[in-house]
Amino acid sequence: MKRNIYLKTVRLEEAIEEFQRRAKTHVQVETIPLEEALGRVLAKPVYARLSNPNFNASAMDGIAVRAQNTLSADERNPLVLERGVDFIDVDTGDVIEDPYNAVIMIEEVYPVDQTHVQILSPCTPYQHVRMIGEDFIVGEMLLEAEHILKACDLGALAAGGITTVEVYQKIRVGIIPTGDEIVRPEEVQKPGDIPDSNSYMFKGMVEEVGAIGKRYPIVKDDPNALKEALLKAVKENDLVLINAGSSAGRDDYTSTCIQELGEVWVHGIDMKPGKPAILGAIQQKPVIGIPGYPVSAYMTIKHFVQPLISRISHIEPSSQRVKAILSQAVPSDLRYKEFVRVQLGKVGDKLIAAPLTRGAASTISLVKANGILVIPKEVEGYQARQEVEIESFADRFDIEHALFVIGSHDILLDQIRNLLISQHTGIRLVSNHVGSEGGLIAMARQEAHLAPIHLLDPQTGQYNLKAVRTYFPNRKMILIKAIQRVQGFYMRKDGPHVHTFREISQQGLRFVNRQRGAGTRVLTDYLCTKEGVDVRTIVGYEKELFTHTAVAYAVKNQSADIGIGIESVAVEMGLDYEEIGVEDYDFLIDAQSVQDANIQAFLQVLQSGELKERLEQMKGYKLNPIQLVEI
Amino acid sequence: MKRNIYLKTVRLEEAIEEFQRRAKTHVQVETIPLEEALGRVLAKPVYARLSNPNFNASAMDGIAVRAQNTLSADERNPLVLERGVDFIDVDTGDVIEDPYNAVIMIEEVYPVDQTHVQILSPCTPYQHVRMIGEDFIVGEMLLEAEHILKACDLGALAAGGITTVEVYQKIRVGIIPTGDEIVRPEEVQKPGDIPDSNSYMFKGMVEEVGAIGKRYPIVKDDPNALKEALLKAVKENDLVLINAGSSAGRDDYTSTCIQELGEVWVHGIDMKPGKPAILGAIQQKPVIGIPGYPVSAYMTIKHFVQPLISRISHIEPSSQRVKAILSQAVPSDLRYKEFVRVQLGKVGDKLIAAPLTRGAASTISLVKANGILVIPKEVEGYQARQEVEIESFADRFDIEHALFVIGSHDILLDQIRNLLISQHTGIRLVSNHVGSEGGLIAMARQEAHLAPIHLLDPQTGQYNLKAVRTYFPNRKMILIKAIQRVQGFYMRKDGPHVHTFREISQQGLRFVNRQRGAGTRVLTDYLCTKEGVDVRTIVGYEKELFTHTAVAYAVKNQSADIGIGIESVAVEMGLDYEEIGVEDYDFLIDAQSVQDANIQAFLQVLQSGELKERLEQMKGYKLNPIQLVEI
Repeated sequence: MKRNIYLKTVRLEEAIEEFQRRAKTHVQVETIPLEEALGRVLAKPVYARLSNPNFNASAMDGIAVRAQNTLSADERNPLVLERGVDFIDVDTGDVIEDPYNAVIMIEEVYPVDQTHVQILSPCTPYQHVRMIGEDFIVGEMLLEAEHILKACDLGALAAGGITTVEVYQKIRVGIIPTGDEIVRPEEVQKPGDIPDSNSYMFKGMVEEVGAIGKRYPIVKDDPNALKEALLKAVKENDLVLINAGSSAGRDDYTSTCIQELGEVWVHGIDMKPGKPAILGAIQQKPVIGIPGYPVSAYMTIKHFVQPLISRISHIEPSSQRVKAILSQAVPSDLRYKEFVRVQLGKVGDKLIAAPLTRGAASTISLVKANGILVIPKEVEGYQARQEVEIESFADRFDIEHALFVIGSHDILLDQIRNLLISQHTGIRLVSNHVGSEGGLIAMARQEAHLAPIHLLDPQTGQYNLKAVRTYFPNRKMILIKAIQRVQGFYMRKDGPHVHTFREISQQGLRFVNRQRGAGTRVLTDYLCTKEGVDVRTIVGYEKELFTHTAVAYAVKNQSADIGIGIESVAVEMGLDYEEIGVEDYDFLIDAQSVQDANIQAFLQVLQSGELKERLEQMKGYKLNPIQLVEI
Repeated sequence: MKRNIYLKTVRLEEAIEEFQRRAKTHVQVETIPLEEALGRVLAKPVYARLSNPNFNASAMDGIAVRAQNTLSADERNPLVLERGVDFIDVDTGDVIEDPYNAVIMIEEVYPVDQTHVQILSPCTPYQHVRMIGEDFIVGEMLLEAEHILKACDLGALAAGGITTVEVYQKIRVGIIPTGDEIVRPEEVQKPGDIPDSNSYMFKGMVEEVGAIGKRYPIVKDDPNALKEALLKAVKENDLVLINAGSSAGRDDYTSTCIQELGEVWVHGIDMKPGKPAILGAIQQKPVIGIPGYPVSAYMTIKHFVQPLISRISHIEPSSQRVKAILSQAVPSDLRYKEFVRVQLGKVGDKLIAAPLTRGAASTISLVKANGILVIPKEVEGYQARQEVEIESFADRFDIEHALFVIGSHDILLDQIRNLLISQHTGIRLVSNHVGSEGGLIAMARQEAHLAPIHLLDPQTGQYNLKAVRTYFPNRKMILIKAIQRVQGFYMRKDGPHVHTFREISQQGLRFVNRQRGAGTRVLTDYLCTKEGVDVRTIVGYEKELFTHTAVAYAVKNQSADIGIGIESVAVEMGLDYEEIGVEDYDFLIDAQSVQDANIQAFLQVLQSGELKERLEQMKGYKLNPIQLVEI
């Protein structure tokens, strides 16, 4: 495959301008039933075919009279009226016509006998009569072109006798996944198979702004097949997205195909992620080559495809600019305009933006993000604690209900997150897995609400107390003690089995470790020292992974023989497990925050029957009555 | 029909609490294809079925090597590697497996010959390798229950091997229109026929928050038919809305039917509009009796139905509270909590809320509203210029692009509004028809951007100059002179024809007038004086309507014989027309605002070929080159 290294990229702003100028979508107009028109955009103004009301109508329940005949009525001289002669009974909405011209409401009419009533005051002409055309008149322009139809617009149009409307067709977007290695998600079988996930996101993103996305079958890396697929999609749609693969080779290849069938305006943009995007057209219809990494793809669609659709649909993803404090430093490459996904939330009065994984391949960072930090070209990045501007997709509720949980990882946090949400508290647990010491640092910086920690003090054999005293000499903190976890060895059922670190060392088994700073690592180091084993004699001791699950997976997949972690994960992965001991998995909070709604909700979940039940199912946990230990 | 006057109503807050407590919706869970799941709410947490990546993968295009074999490479001593022995070529996404454990990117690989390359620096293990499970690991909880699926969530799930999801079914809402007088909008024939417009709005309003609305056929006023329709709708839906008619009698009737089939919790609420709402249930499914007037219906759905659906769908109509200055006084009834629709926009630095027609029957007020003013019970209302809090549905764009045009009515304003919008300026012309003098007052109060006026000075025969000088002795204003209109008599083709007011008076014809303060009225008074006709001798001179169209319509429908107005409306209505003279229809602006984008866009439309063309079609206008007259 011919390879092409990006030497010339276009500035993002220039690329946007170029694209806006050249990309034309010729939208058709269609006539649709009114009841299906919610959110659609009128292609032409709509004029009333009926007046509203369509006749002089009673606005009240009561009697219709001739106003000029009621002038003599007063409290001392009630006026008696005869049914069928002086008045008729009317309900709201009934026609008022000659000779009647006014309505007296039922509350002011006093029955005398079967055919007579009396009234105590005169009425004025057209009193309580809704005049024909009072709301609008036949021929009046009810709604202008380009109007987005809301629910009450539909009611007004129906009242005007309109039951079909001419609207712009939704923009049809063809989506072509490509690549020999790409298979349908349900068909992943062997290493090297990559599930086609992007086409699902692309369809969602175009539909979020009012288009219709159509996913085409996966095209293999064959120029003829690619061109055929492009021509078919161009014919059937207003706009085509082709997932150009993530490698330099691949997108070059796509670019050539587009060039041969039409034209390429831009190939390579100085934004990160998103650099290898291709902008062009075939048969005057815009064709956009989307990079393969999901985050690059997201950024390309956000900057080029969504705005093009929004021009017609008038639907824009809502966002606003907010100031937030970065929870950690974000360095950046001077050569690119960079987009970093963040999670926004409030800790105390501070709006905190927690940067998410930067990898262009991280789908989870997209899932968790509710904001984007833009780092301009020629800026080296931002410092931790620096105030930055964020493009926020979060609403206020989102931000106030974020519970920043930063520290040691445990899959029970997923369970707590799920219970918090399924109990309709609205609280969204944002967890960052930085190990126990990382959690202490985040708490010290007041950038977390809560830190899950399990730090063993080798001198006392106690968990967490000493570490918290060391980190917070002058601040009143509370340790929430409730959960104990079993730690032990992960072993494949058909692999080697051990009871001590000495055996690992002696048998030369491949070990996989946790990162320095993690509570589990402290325990590992402690046990080795206790056994008198030189860690340099353990193969793979320097191989550090960041979660229990990652460790278990390494064992499961034979890239290591033994790991250390919690039992729940072993059960989930079908690994054998050898207990080493029980440890305290505590939650650290600031003493001042204990009454906060978010913390209270957390405590409630912690002592709930549901959590107890789930932890029992997962194995390896002990849930004790909650103890709040002030430090 | 039995009649029932509301004597006991429940406080809105109590009714909401009661309803929230008692109304239960039992939502089913359904499994749907991932690609149709955008915006849906997960009923259960979703766990990954594949890791992402699903194997150790190259993160770059380049070569895969054994890191431990590259240690000797440096710039002075390049290391030569042999293809197939020391390295293999890899593209981004390719599998990295034993014996290889690191990737060197293509930019750092220097070809030697067909089978050899050299490198200038060593690499570290797993460099440029995306480790299996780096993004997420099989079994990991990807998304929690109650999560609303965004586009990037769909991508992440597909990457996790998930192609179907369990989501809450959309809430099904049955909508039953009722009433002997209600007909389908396309079947309105005779006076008294009322088009069923509400069911369209109801369907739209429930769909705006994520439910599915189903409109049932119109049910006549027959208790058996009503009960049958209710039972069918209850069976087929999770929630039923029955449009209970607008009269006291009608809703009582509906209430009785619901009571007989199930239970009624609340009937009558102290809000305005919306008083006669009914809250109850049949077979444990909520049934809500919705008042017939569209604004009352809107308020009832907004307060009861939408929040119930939002609890499940997590979709809420977005709104925020803003402070705005009322452009006119809004009195209110002490007995009710009242909701007044307003149009929000900015004039200068002030956010202005222009109250719309209060009538519960006004669909146009709903169409135009982008905010709601709440007047609490036991508050008498608000003064003009008072600062009030508004629930705003307007976005910032909406507010900044409102052009407040307040003054004399002319249907060409509809044309200008349409041209402004169809030219994608985004500017929304908000017109209030208060006559020329009303326009001058609004300009004086700085509550309008622009006032269309046509005030004749009987002394000089000149238009507008004197009035502006009188109203703005110390402020520099500009009159935009461009349009002249023909004014004349409206006459039915088969009705009496006249040339003078004297003839109207002498023949005893029924005249219909414009309201005092309107420019047309000033002209009318002037012509009568000039002819020496005593206006008290003209039948109907005191009957005042607010627009040209209303006047023409009164003549057309024989409630008057002669009216006065502009030719375009006569043409549109098929009336005969007798010219009286030409008048200047000018637009008044503040001299300081002439460079504002909104005013400039207005000027551009005013001199556009499209407007000229349309005015020629409409007849009765002269479009001259624009003259800006400073006063």
